[in-house]
Amino acid sequence: MIDYQEVLSRYRPTQEEENKLKIISDDIIRKINSICRSRGLRAEAVIVGSYAKGTNLRDGDLDIFIAFDRDYPEEIINTEGLHIGHAVIPNGREKYAEHPYVSGEIGGVKIDVVPCYKMSFGDKKISAVDRTLLHTEYVNGHLDEKGRDEVRLLKIFTKSIGVYGAEARTFGFSGYLCELLVIRFGSFENVIRYFSKAKGRVLIDLDERFRDPMVLIDPVDPDRNVASPVSLESLSRMKIASKMFLSSPDEGFFQIEHNGKNVQYHDRGTCIMIYSLPKPDLTDDVIYPQVYRFRSVLQKIMESHEIRVISSEIDVSDRIYVLIETPACAEERIRVHTGPPVDTDNAVDFVNSWKARDRSRGPYIVADRLYVDVFTGQRSIEDIVRQEIFNYSIGKNLDRFKKSMEIMKFNVGMKSLPVLDKFFGADVFRK
Amino acid sequence: MIDYQEVLSRYRPTQEEENKLKIISDDIIRKINSICRSRGLRAEAVIVGSYAKGTNLRDGDLDIFIAFDRDYPEEIINTEGLHIGHAVIPNGREKYAEHPYVSGEIGGVKIDVVPCYKMSFGDKKISAVDRTLLHTEYVNGHLDEKGRDEVRLLKIFTKSIGVYGAEARTFGFSGYLCELLVIRFGSFENVIRYFSKAKGRVLIDLDERFRDPMVLIDPVDPDRNVASPVSLESLSRMKIASKMFLSSPDEGFFQIEHNGKNVQYHDRGTCIMIYSLPKPDLTDDVIYPQVYRFRSVLQKIMESHEIRVISSEIDVSDRIYVLIETPACAEERIRVHTGPPVDTDNAVDFVNSWKARDRSRGPYIVADRLYVDVFTGQRSIEDIVRQEIFNYSIGKNLDRFKKSMEIMKFNVGMKSLPVLDKFFGADVFRK
Repeated sequence: MIDYQEVLSRYRPTQEEENKLKIISDDIIRKINSICRSRGLRAEAVIVGSYAKGTNLRDGDLDIFIAFDRDYPEEIINTEGLHIGHAVIPNGREKYAEHPYVSGEIGGVKIDVVPCYKMSFGDKKISAVDRTLLHTEYVNGHLDEKGRDEVRLLKIFTKSIGVYGAEARTFGFSGYLCELLVIRFGSFENVIRYFSKAKGRVLIDLDERFRDPMVLIDPVDPDRNVASPVSLESLSRMKIASKMFLSSPDEGFFQIEHNGKNVQYHDRGTCIMIYSLPKPDLTDDVIYPQVYRFRSVLQKIMESHEIRVISSEIDVSDRIYVLIETPACAEERIRVHTGPPVDTDNAVDFVNSWKARDRSRGPYIVADRLYVDVFTGQRSIEDIVRQEIFNYSIGKNLDRFKKSMEIMKFNVGMKSLPVLDKFFGADVFRK
Repeated sequence: MIDYQEVLSRYRPTQEEENKLKIISDDIIRKINSICRSRGLRAEAVIVGSYAKGTNLRDGDLDIFIAFDRDYPEEIINTEGLHIGHAVIPNGREKYAEHPYVSGEIGGVKIDVVPCYKMSFGDKKISAVDRTLLHTEYVNGHLDEKGRDEVRLLKIFTKSIGVYGAEARTFGFSGYLCELLVIRFGSFENVIRYFSKAKGRVLIDLDERFRDPMVLIDPVDPDRNVASPVSLESLSRMKIASKMFLSSPDEGFFQIEHNGKNVQYHDRGTCIMIYSLPKPDLTDDVIYPQVYRFRSVLQKIMESHEIRVISSEIDVSDRIYVLIETPACAEERIRVHTGPPVDTDNAVDFVNSWKARDRSRGPYIVADRLYVDVFTGQRSIEDIVRQEIFNYSIGKNLDRFKKSMEIMKFNVGMKSLPVLDKFFGADVFRK
């Protein structure tokens, strides 16, 4: 059996940390409210996020919203929000979500001060940030002290198996989703039991508008699926982790920090190429979709040369890395070139033009389509990618780095790289 | 422009051949009817097939049916049919279709004498052979002399592009289908124009019971699609040949005998293996389905080792040949082994068992399924096939030859083989 109290004692904030968070947050709230009064603003500070809901883990952040009356125009809350943010966080940096906000650190605690509109249940929603106020209210109204620790256990479990976080890096379970799951099913173990038995799409709420792998409707906004970021992979990981945990409960499912496991690079008799770009100074949610696109462009280039992709991996650390594994490092001598379907107007031209050209064989027909086997120049994959990457967009922030793309060919003796560690260490869970 | 009369003069039977066919068939019919009378059988001889319909090409066969009254039991028509067949064809051999029959040669003409039941339009059909009587009647009632030559042109055209014949060797257009097409569209060129414009499935008759690529309902049997043997490939070939012929009419579309074209064997940088079995003394319609099965078993074996099949070819001549082309002649060093979906009961066992075994990486999850990359023994394809062919059935007449299967590895200098000629000479049309 797992000693849940022991697990919690490792990851729940210490009394000392709680005291510090309280002192810092009380202080900031006092300052914000005082500034609002002195500037005659109808606005007040609100603590949100996991600290406000009592579901925070050790070394967490503080999220403080400045909630403005709803009749202020957007420009006012933007400029006043930044002004107040800078006033309460010395050396804070401006960031941008739905409104601009100020982010910084006080006494070792990461703090965001974000302006928003005051909301009540049933109000027409203004933005995701505004909705957060209602989430805090809802969770505090539905979780007792015991429930908060159950949420903490679920967060630790999902972190441990690599499915915690809704952002593009993970496409997993948000903190709010963990809270709603515990509210819905009553306890951490009930949630795990539920996922261990789930088959196919996980429809906790039946709502045909959503085609996501998992659906749980936001109790404060019936038009929103809280589980919509959860990818099929993350859901699969959660299902099998739940089964494995129930069949043999293991402390390993409550280990957020994994020792870098001993990954052995070895020869797979294949060609592993690593494409690397500088990492722009942008948030994960902006970078990751472009990294996925970069990978899919590389896969498309391989496909267009009939080069089979065996596997791939991505990593965003000091730089952006995409790994593509293929059977060999150059094109094969021949390539099956796919022509038009026979029903198209240019089918005859295809046949006539290829009959006059150098080729291995064909044109010939398979099913309803024309093909011809052509001789390739047996170019190296590196040459092909260096040339053809310019025919594709890999996202507005990455496109300008195409020229400085670095291409490495894996060999067993090469220096360690996170993308290679991820590739060779591929696991059911991202431990 | 094509001189159709010149084409017909090359392939229509000569006056001499017509005279010979008439003398032979009149003689056989007289003999059969005389035997029937002397044995008191209510039966009579009928000429069927393309000769009876006047749509025959040069050097064709004679098909003569003995039509029995419908109240005879099957045993009688079988034994009497064989008796009469042997009496009129000295040295005839017994063959078996729906009834047993006698096949042989007289004066250089191949002749089949086949027993069947007398049929009228609307009768409940007894067999495909019986239906043939009605086909002869229908075609003779709907084609004049000009129409018969139009059918001959269509037969020559379809033979020339390799789509003539409904049997398993070709999966193409039967003689009866050619006749019905000319009856339906009025002339050879109208048929060609129709196919040159056809897109997708060719539904000359709309009948949702049939899911074949082409549908034309038998006018003497509304439950039968005369075009059902036509494969998607044959239909595609007919469509593009029609387009090409109309865009530039060429005598080549009326050349049944193609000079073996000069096929160059060359190195494709791949591994081409040829698997060969003795050819049993059976009809094409029995052998071909088993040859297709043999090929699909070889493809399945490759697939189960994650070996990509680039292309394949079959040939039935002195022996049975199946050619399978792959990137290399041995397994790759690693193989992506597909595990169960995470939703299945054995998913956890899969993970646990592989964690204890030698492997390159994994188990890991893609979408909703588990995978593990395993090291193969890098066995040669020949070894793999020799061992694993015994796990599959390749048809009741071929299974016993598995042990004596010959396996050849292609090299540029090897002796000519029909299957290699077909492979390297692959063309839009089977010229």
